[in-house]
Amino acid sequence: MKIVILGFGKVARHLVRAFLSAEGVDEIQIYNRSVTNIPAGISFTTKLSELIQAHVYIMAIPDDPIPGLSEKLPFENRLVVHTSGSVAMSRLSAKNRSGVFYPLQTFSKDHEVSFETIPICLEATHAQDLKTLWDLGSFISEKVVEINSEERRKLHLAAVFVNNFTNHLYRISEEMIAEHHLDFDLLKPLILETAHKIETLSPEEAQTGPAIRNDRKTMEYHLELLANERYQEIYRTLTKSIQITHGKKL
Amino acid sequence: MKIVILGFGKVARHLVRAFLSAEGVDEIQIYNRSVTNIPAGISFTTKLSELIQAHVYIMAIPDDPIPGLSEKLPFENRLVVHTSGSVAMSRLSAKNRSGVFYPLQTFSKDHEVSFETIPICLEATHAQDLKTLWDLGSFISEKVVEINSEERRKLHLAAVFVNNFTNHLYRISEEMIAEHHLDFDLLKPLILETAHKIETLSPEEAQTGPAIRNDRKTMEYHLELLANERYQEIYRTLTKSIQITHGKKL
Repeated sequence: MKIVILGFGKVARHLVRAFLSAEGVDEIQIYNRSVTNIPAGISFTTKLSELIQAHVYIMAIPDDPIPGLSEKLPFENRLVVHTSGSVAMSRLSAKNRSGVFYPLQTFSKDHEVSFETIPICLEATHAQDLKTLWDLGSFISEKVVEINSEERRKLHLAAVFVNNFTNHLYRISEEMIAEHHLDFDLLKPLILETAHKIETLSPEEAQTGPAIRNDRKTMEYHLELLANERYQEIYRTLTKSIQITHGKKL
Repeated sequence: MKIVILGFGKVARHLVRAFLSAEGVDEIQIYNRSVTNIPAGISFTTKLSELIQAHVYIMAIPDDPIPGLSEKLPFENRLVVHTSGSVAMSRLSAKNRSGVFYPLQTFSKDHEVSFETIPICLEATHAQDLKTLWDLGSFISEKVVEINSEERRKLHLAAVFVNNFTNHLYRISEEMIAEHHLDFDLLKPLILETAHKIETLSPEEAQTGPAIRNDRKTMEYHLELLANERYQEIYRTLTKSIQITHGKKL
């Protein structure tokens, strides 16, 4: 399969790395407006007019420019997909056949991920294109699923909760214990166990702590310890939500 | 070393399992008010008067009864410790020598944990007792640290953020995607990667998402998607905190 990747940001780089070691992908071309650090053996262009004939054109770019770039592509009736969690497939220009290739994962510049376990969420207007994307997804991942635009947006929102918000809670904890010159490493086994626990227990079963025990003394003491009003607000908001969820009297 | 464990709840059960396979622990006795499901080969009593002579008495019970039970022990000048993150060592009766043996981890009934990586946070009034606890901790864990009561309380508070609150975010996500009949398994690779990422990146470096990008369009859309007011409040509170932390204009 021949593929073109448009853009060379975080998602694009991770995809290229995965496709490079995937059997079934014969040729990769990268398009980017500016020249950047391209891996050896991959063709690269800064001109849309030089795009090769490919089976799939993958736009791995920020959300806002997706409709505009799809409109500017100098060809018609080819399969053009984006990789965004929150952009509807219908925002792609109708002059080409549309699809979505959304890897449900968080990508950072300096942290490699293994694609095998990453769910690849697909959408396409034509059954044949869905099959092409399914094949492409299967080259790099064991988990390929068909998800429509509305479902994908909900998944993306859920991902904000389990990734962005969770990571911010890590950050707050790091700050809190750093005040006492304690090492963040002390919390890492707990962080890992919290994540691994839900492989075998539901989040409902895994819930512990003062909020679910309705341990008022500890909760009041925690609010005193939190000198920062913003952290107090987070503590109150999440505690209240745990208690409502688990049917405790407030 | 001979040890007595007072109480047989979640923490006690996990400790007993760890001590049973630890070299260096010769004898374990369990005390509990009611007869319960005791592992083979361990002596058990419901009477404080039958407690054996041991090197360490570990009270693995809820916070509130800790001072009372420590007062009721029918002996003096032995080493008595509790396992709580939030109870000060000074709450233990002064008739015995006091200490704390706090494993910084979340324990669930049906999920085994490996103690090797769990930080054991110690405190003791006497240097010799600290050494005894250090030896005991080293039998089951590679990470033993001395932590005073104030630091321990801060650690416990931080643990509430990275464990209790994080697990609640998992729960909310599960609920949100279940409305669309989507499988929670789809989010698990992201949950694991979020936790594993901070083994190599700081939470600051690992932060991604609409809040740190100040992507107003996506954030507004997310708030619309969240029909539940409580979840909207969590979204707003955590988004605001991410933006303040990372110096975005609100």
